[in-house]
Amino acid sequence: MQPADPSPRGPVDASVVPRFAGIATFARLPMLDDVERADIAVVGVPFDSGVSYRPGARFGPAHVREASRLLRPYNPAQDVFPFGAQQVADAGDIAANPFDIDAAVAEIAAAARTLGERASRLVAIGGDHTIALPLLRAVTERHGPVAVIHFDAHLDTWDTYFGAPTTHGTPFRRASEEGLIDLTASMHIGIRGPLYDKSDLSDDERLGFAIVTADEIERDGVTRAIERIRARVGGAPLYLSIDIDVLDPAHAPGTGTPEAGGLTSRELLTIIRGLRDLPIVGADVVEVAPAYDHAQITAVAASHTVYELLSAMAPKGPEA
Amino acid sequence: MQPADPSPRGPVDASVVPRFAGIATFARLPMLDDVERADIAVVGVPFDSGVSYRPGARFGPAHVREASRLLRPYNPAQDVFPFGAQQVADAGDIAANPFDIDAAVAEIAAAARTLGERASRLVAIGGDHTIALPLLRAVTERHGPVAVIHFDAHLDTWDTYFGAPTTHGTPFRRASEEGLIDLTASMHIGIRGPLYDKSDLSDDERLGFAIVTADEIERDGVTRAIERIRARVGGAPLYLSIDIDVLDPAHAPGTGTPEAGGLTSRELLTIIRGLRDLPIVGADVVEVAPAYDHAQITAVAASHTVYELLSAMAPKGPEA
Amino acid sequence: MQPADPSPRGPVDASVVPRFAGIATFARLPMLDDVERADIAVVGVPFDSGVSYRPGARFGPAHVREASRLLRPYNPAQDVFPFGAQQVADAGDIAANPFDIDAAVAEIAAAARTLGERASRLVAIGGDHTIALPLLRAVTERHGPVAVIHFDAHLDTWDTYFGAPTTHGTPFRRASEEGLIDLTASMHIGIRGPLYDKSDLSDDERLGFAIVTADEIERDGVTRAIERIRARVGGAPLYLSIDIDVLDPAHAPGTGTPEAGGLTSRELLTIIRGLRDLPIVGADVVEVAPAYDHAQITAVAASHTVYELLSAMAPKGPEA
Amino acid sequence: MQPADPSPRGPVDASVVPRFAGIATFARLPMLDDVERADIAVVGVPFDSGVSYRPGARFGPAHVREASRLLRPYNPAQDVFPFGAQQVADAGDIAANPFDIDAAVAEIAAAARTLGERASRLVAIGGDHTIALPLLRAVTERHGPVAVIHFDAHLDTWDTYFGAPTTHGTPFRRASEEGLIDLTASMHIGIRGPLYDKSDLSDDERLGFAIVTADEIERDGVTRAIERIRARVGGAPLYLSIDIDVLDPAHAPGTGTPEAGGLTSRELLTIIRGLRDLPIVGADVVEVAPAYDHAQITAVAASHTVYELLSAMAPKGPEA
Amino acid sequence: MQPADPSPRGPVDASVVPRFAGIATFARLPMLDDVERADIAVVGVPFDSGVSYRPGARFGPAHVREASRLLRPYNPAQDVFPFGAQQVADAGDIAANPFDIDAAVAEIAAAARTLGERASRLVAIGGDHTIALPLLRAVTERHGPVAVIHFDAHLDTWDTYFGAPTTHGTPFRRASEEGLIDLTASMHIGIRGPLYDKSDLSDDERLGFAIVTADEIERDGVTRAIERIRARVGGAPLYLSIDIDVLDPAHAPGTGTPEAGGLTSRELLTIIRGLRDLPIVGADVVEVAPAYDHAQITAVAASHTVYELLSAMAPKGPEA
Amino acid sequence: MQPADPSPRGPVDASVVPRFAGIATFARLPMLDDVERADIAVVGVPFDSGVSYRPGARFGPAHVREASRLLRPYNPAQDVFPFGAQQVADAGDIAANPFDIDAAVAEIAAAARTLGERASRLVAIGGDHTIALPLLRAVTERHGPVAVIHFDAHLDTWDTYFGAPTTHGTPFRRASEEGLIDLTASMHIGIRGPLYDKSDLSDDERLGFAIVTADEIERDGVTRAIERIRARVGGAPLYLSIDIDVLDPAHAPGTGTPEAGGLTSRELLTIIRGLRDLPIVGADVVEVAPAYDHAQITAVAASHTVYELLSAMAPKGPEA
Repeated sequence: MQPADPSPRGPVDASVVPRFAGIATFARLPMLDDVERADIAVVGVPFDSGVSYRPGARFGPAHVREASRLLRPYNPAQDVFPFGAQQVADAGDIAANPFDIDAAVAEIAAAARTLGERASRLVAIGGDHTIALPLLRAVTERHGPVAVIHFDAHLDTWDTYFGAPTTHGTPFRRASEEGLIDLTASMHIGIRGPLYDKSDLSDDERLGFAIVTADEIERDGVTRAIERIRARVGGAPLYLSIDIDVLDPAHAPGTGTPEAGGLTSRELLTIIRGLRDLPIVGADVVEVAPAYDHAQITAVAASHTVYELLSAMAPKGPEA
Repeated sequence: MQPADPSPRGPVDASVVPRFAGIATFARLPMLDDVERADIAVVGVPFDSGVSYRPGARFGPAHVREASRLLRPYNPAQDVFPFGAQQVADAGDIAANPFDIDAAVAEIAAAARTLGERASRLVAIGGDHTIALPLLRAVTERHGPVAVIHFDAHLDTWDTYFGAPTTHGTPFRRASEEGLIDLTASMHIGIRGPLYDKSDLSDDERLGFAIVTADEIERDGVTRAIERIRARVGGAPLYLSIDIDVLDPAHAPGTGTPEAGGLTSRELLTIIRGLRDLPIVGADVVEVAPAYDHAQITAVAASHTVYELLSAMAPKGPEA
Repeated sequence: MQPADPSPRGPVDASVVPRFAGIATFARLPMLDDVERADIAVVGVPFDSGVSYRPGARFGPAHVREASRLLRPYNPAQDVFPFGAQQVADAGDIAANPFDIDAAVAEIAAAARTLGERASRLVAIGGDHTIALPLLRAVTERHGPVAVIHFDAHLDTWDTYFGAPTTHGTPFRRASEEGLIDLTASMHIGIRGPLYDKSDLSDDERLGFAIVTADEIERDGVTRAIERIRARVGGAPLYLSIDIDVLDPAHAPGTGTPEAGGLTSRELLTIIRGLRDLPIVGADVVEVAPAYDHAQITAVAASHTVYELLSAMAPKGPEA
Repeated sequence: MQPADPSPRGPVDASVVPRFAGIATFARLPMLDDVERADIAVVGVPFDSGVSYRPGARFGPAHVREASRLLRPYNPAQDVFPFGAQQVADAGDIAANPFDIDAAVAEIAAAARTLGERASRLVAIGGDHTIALPLLRAVTERHGPVAVIHFDAHLDTWDTYFGAPTTHGTPFRRASEEGLIDLTASMHIGIRGPLYDKSDLSDDERLGFAIVTADEIERDGVTRAIERIRARVGGAPLYLSIDIDVLDPAHAPGTGTPEAGGLTSRELLTIIRGLRDLPIVGADVVEVAPAYDHAQITAVAASHTVYELLSAMAPKGPEA
Repeated sequence: MQPADPSPRGPVDASVVPRFAGIATFARLPMLDDVERADIAVVGVPFDSGVSYRPGARFGPAHVREASRLLRPYNPAQDVFPFGAQQVADAGDIAANPFDIDAAVAEIAAAARTLGERASRLVAIGGDHTIALPLLRAVTERHGPVAVIHFDAHLDTWDTYFGAPTTHGTPFRRASEEGLIDLTASMHIGIRGPLYDKSDLSDDERLGFAIVTADEIERDGVTRAIERIRARVGGAPLYLSIDIDVLDPAHAPGTGTPEAGGLTSRELLTIIRGLRDLPIVGADVVEVAPAYDHAQITAVAASHTVYELLSAMAPKGPEA
Repeated sequence: MQPADPSPRGPVDASVVPRFAGIATFARLPMLDDVERADIAVVGVPFDSGVSYRPGARFGPAHVREASRLLRPYNPAQDVFPFGAQQVADAGDIAANPFDIDAAVAEIAAAARTLGERASRLVAIGGDHTIALPLLRAVTERHGPVAVIHFDAHLDTWDTYFGAPTTHGTPFRRASEEGLIDLTASMHIGIRGPLYDKSDLSDDERLGFAIVTADEIERDGVTRAIERIRARVGGAPLYLSIDIDVLDPAHAPGTGTPEAGGLTSRELLTIIRGLRDLPIVGADVVEVAPAYDHAQITAVAASHTVYELLSAMAPKGPEA
């Protein structure tokens, strides 16, 4: 994958404009309109009408952008300049109807397609997990069924809730039913906590997912988790969907359905780094609910997660 | 109006069970199921899918109940025992579909009707202001068009938002169009802040509302406001709809669309007291969003508002 | 009353040591041990085992001291240098048994007496309102029965609670029964909110208190309140007992039993100023509960209240 | 142990009533009064007058119940339906005198005994750790001396504090002295932080406790901790007493005496799971202080801890 | 003053893009770069190295912009469309050196001058009050000495602090010394709280300021304050400098040097409205410190204050 | 190293004065003035004008002292009485000019030298990391170049920022250039997150630092980290500089430049314990920013870190 431009336009220079100054785009990157096209567009999807418990992720994109002011250009953990090896730009937010889930989902898919004309890949900041469905619809139009590596406390393969087929608890069932998911290469990471029934697990397996539970990470560590993910994904085009509640509430209090016993932010970042040579075709980081996020604990974790994703998606090699 | 019982069952005795102990019903009153029928049922309506900005009022009923633990039996400001002069009970919450506004509105109206069989009048705790519409539908089935005295920073007579006719910004337009409102006797109290257009005001007048702005209260005081309300209402059956954002953000930070320059809680309570001999047929207190409510500032104001309403609705006289 | 010293030792010089630096004594005044004697000792009483609802006022003295770092030497509202016209010193905290109310009350009274040997008058920072009883016992040993002007949302003349005669709801009943209170000159200011029974009011009157309610202040203003207080007090030696919950929860969220509809901090400060030529023999400011006090809203109000008290207690006249 | 009923009554159905709606009982389970008897009663003990530092755990039961709304019926980590394999019910709160520790302790023991007539086992939610003493008194009346596995940052085997023999720092010394504890089978888990003296440790050992420190868990991991606990307990009837401050302040900020260097919630849940086939005869989860608990971080951990306990206490086997 | 364009470009349409979506410019207005010139530029000045107590106002501009998302186009209180009667645009932030006050002040003045080439008037959002000095330097280059109406708890005419002549406590002394202020027409509003010395007041008067204290507003009301301001200003070109701490801590907890006894947001907005036909040549709103601003209480007040200023600065008349 | 006194004066006795009572010195130790000289002086340095992002560490010393009230006399993890084996005293705060970094740095160095006359070693509580430079200047005057073991997310060996050579991002470059650091024995611990450039790392190595990254600790554990540190330090005189942001934001939200993926407080404490027999000649704990520190999460970690340092610095052996 080639950079859009031999010399990508990077963030505002922090030696000229202090980090706390200026309008908050992600990592203080240029807007997509200002660079015309990009290798990767970071796009906000402030939609949270699909939540079943604490709402508020509609304010997630603005909150994560504010917390991303501290991100610097070079990522030593991956030995890469994520904003130098490729053009990354902030595409602003997708406007989605807050009162009609179906309309919103259609708007998000349409906007993702349109953005796809100017950006090779998208990294979305939610919003609630409902948005993964339209994003997967858009990404699979280009790439065919994708391996989904899904970081979450929850399976998100439930069927309906109050009669609604499309909520933040159902995107991967719908996606599987629609053939968007590579059934042989997909996996949940970080699953824990109570379920409705044993059949949640058998349904989930049938829908195409293997699982690395949070318990396994406690017992076997992240290195083993990375091995299991890589073995599962193989060489399939990969979509990473990261519900911030995969982290423990200590590391991500600002989220809608917190579950005790989760990952640390260090574990999450390490796992993402372990996937950095895989063909990532898109990603989302969702469920940051700012009203519950004291001191940006969650938003710092989310912004670093996006940064690590962008680094993992950067072209590697002698010239990079 | 007669008490359901010559000796209503009141709150848990605070000299036996500390106020911080026990399951939180409103004011530690009995559940409606435990008293069978009531003069007034306090009912939660945890629905907030109609909000246009900060969500979270779905947690309002639980939060207001928690803050109501401190309420005591005798109200000296109105010289009444609101739980002794009438049977008040907590009817729990109405379950409403969080993903489908129309379904939810139908469920709320139906539940209000059903509750009406066991309780002469309802005082609802929201939830967002959308719930006023189904509550008005239910109350007018019994009483015909009602005078609505509406405390709010906002008119809530807008038409549609993102194509949705039923949101927290539109209940009184819909109610007026449906003939639920006495066009000669209704009024907004506490209006302030920016509008979309001048026509917001002319539309609002046409829909049946006069206005006491927050500015008028600053200038002329609450006594004059009470006089204007009483002159407007006359003897019409009265529905009080209180959006907690009628209070200044200092007095109600925990709400969805805060506007500076609002009322104090003392002003609001004083105005309600000034209406205590009017025929109140129902009421709601809405838009308490706990995630933004440090130290229960908003919930204390809301619980006292409900208490003052219950006092105003209590039978007066030698026998009371 | 003469200053202990012709040139009292004042606060740390803020042009030498920034206000945020140094150990927090009240207003950065010297410790009593460092000046040996004082006209007024400010003393913390971190005891909250008498509370009936939210505890935490045990951390009140430390919290109010932190918020008092901003106090400056000259009070233009009273045209007085409260730390120059008299020696004020911080006497630290009285250690009181947290597990035994009777023991604690005895310890507080004893410590107040002992302090009285080195300081002509005390201004106490609570702690919960229980502490007013031992403080009144100590002060009346010198002055005989005192006029008590009591700022509070609550009467605090209840009898017992869970069998305990001495709690934060009972100090003024006990004090009245013990003959500590001038029954013709005492008064509550700011009373509001629900009571247990009508007899709360008749008992209270019998125990020696008149009342200026919060409602009266809304209706008639603070000037009228000051007149009523002064008429009531006459020339009696005066003890001011200020429960910070006399303020509205907007102005004092950090307290144990908040009641909506209270005073503003501006009203409270204005009333204290209106009493500045009366013979104040002691005072307390109680019920600041830091765990509920975002951004020191309550502690700033409390520290200014103490400052205004100290100013009102300062000698006036040509030489002052 | 047999279920009280072949088909226990479980939580409110979340597909009918949203999780945020309805009165908060633990996990939205039925009240004990509504099922008459239960295998396990979850009971709140809102008493915190035994604390030596930050109070507020009196609001713990209500707070943990609110955070328990998200718990679902099936626990995959233990492969059990904790509400299906046995009847679990919420017994409400035990009313305890907040002003008299001895009276409160007697009330708690009496209430536990009375509840024991309707529920085979109790899981208590505190409240401060003082409550473990009366709960142990009640449980040992049935079972004789029990193995106590005590999760805590602190030993809680101190002698007296300010002359009080019964506080949150002393329950296990008193229990040991009274013969309530199996001296060969008891153990503290998670101990860390400063002590008063070396003799704290020798006293503790003499009183019957072995220790797994937090440091050992850092060094040797939870699997080794589980082995050590199981070796210590053997087959003795087991009481689990969990002070939430066993967790690191990152995982449990809302507590009274936080100590750095604690367990993660994942470690705590894993250890409990490791004890699931032992004969647990009772349990408590204490010291949740809501005023310090941003975003329910602590309450989520506590509610999951209770859930894991209930799962560990459920009958296993083919029919379960 | 003519609009830059017969049809100014206004905020993003809230019926197309929800208010919580999109990059936060002030009131969702266009960036100045996108409209080329403007009648009024709203500009952030994120500089707080001049504070003497709580820092953090460097995050003020971003925080006020976030809270301005709710502002709508029509202001009924002034009967004006502030974004329709004139072109208002967001000029982003001025980058100022955080480590060198003199350098920062020079940068701010230079940037204000440069902005003046594209915008007839500036409304600045601070940052701390230090920024008023360079802003006054820039504005007086065009208009000569200006009447300064200064809303604040503090005089801000102190001389030096730790040897520094330019801090947030000194801008108006420096400005007066430099001849930037019309000595016959300037005034402080809302002054209260302790001073260093009596000479603070005499110095202040000599430097050109009259005073309306917060006490006067308590006693005489806002109408009288408006009269006094108008009498003082006469027809002089007017600069409004609003330190948000003019509000009571209840209404503005998020600020650096809070003082009890302040104005309500309703009073502040009313006073600004009372000045709406005066020739306002520039303004600032400063000292919003987000880290202390729960639920945006302060930021909502500040954003409404800016909105009211913009309305007061809009051309009036038949065509407006 | 000998104790200053055969019987050091320790903390206030918690069995006489409750931990929440009394003026907050560190660990409730005596002030240095009260003991005349000490083996170790704990000194606050409330200076934060060198920060590049969130300010507020000026309030750090007061905040850490408040959180240190819970520290007890005996440290079982190191089997030492840190306040008994040596005289530790609180030296109060160093007053430093908040408006002039160079002046402040000179004041801090001078004060450290002066304190050195009364205390053999200093442990400083910041303030921002700028203060490490003057502290190193003072300590090396006695000891010559020291091994610096620096716990931080960031290298702090950057060159200048906005032209300023002395900020919180540069102390160790300046110190290295000045020859204060033993280039063969120094090391960073906990480094993670984005850098400006690859040259940050090569510059850093040239300036004398080896690195243990947070990633290494995830992968290899703390035991290996301790080994690497000990191998690097050898027997050199050792200065420990601990930026609290070495902890994950979950464990230290209250800091100025948080980075995800950090250490737990348990890991940090374990590493310090692993260094306890090395010749520690001074230390600092910096960057605690209280405005972002809910429930003292960060301050508890910081106060325990200081306690562990004091324990590590205590004389060991038969007589200790």
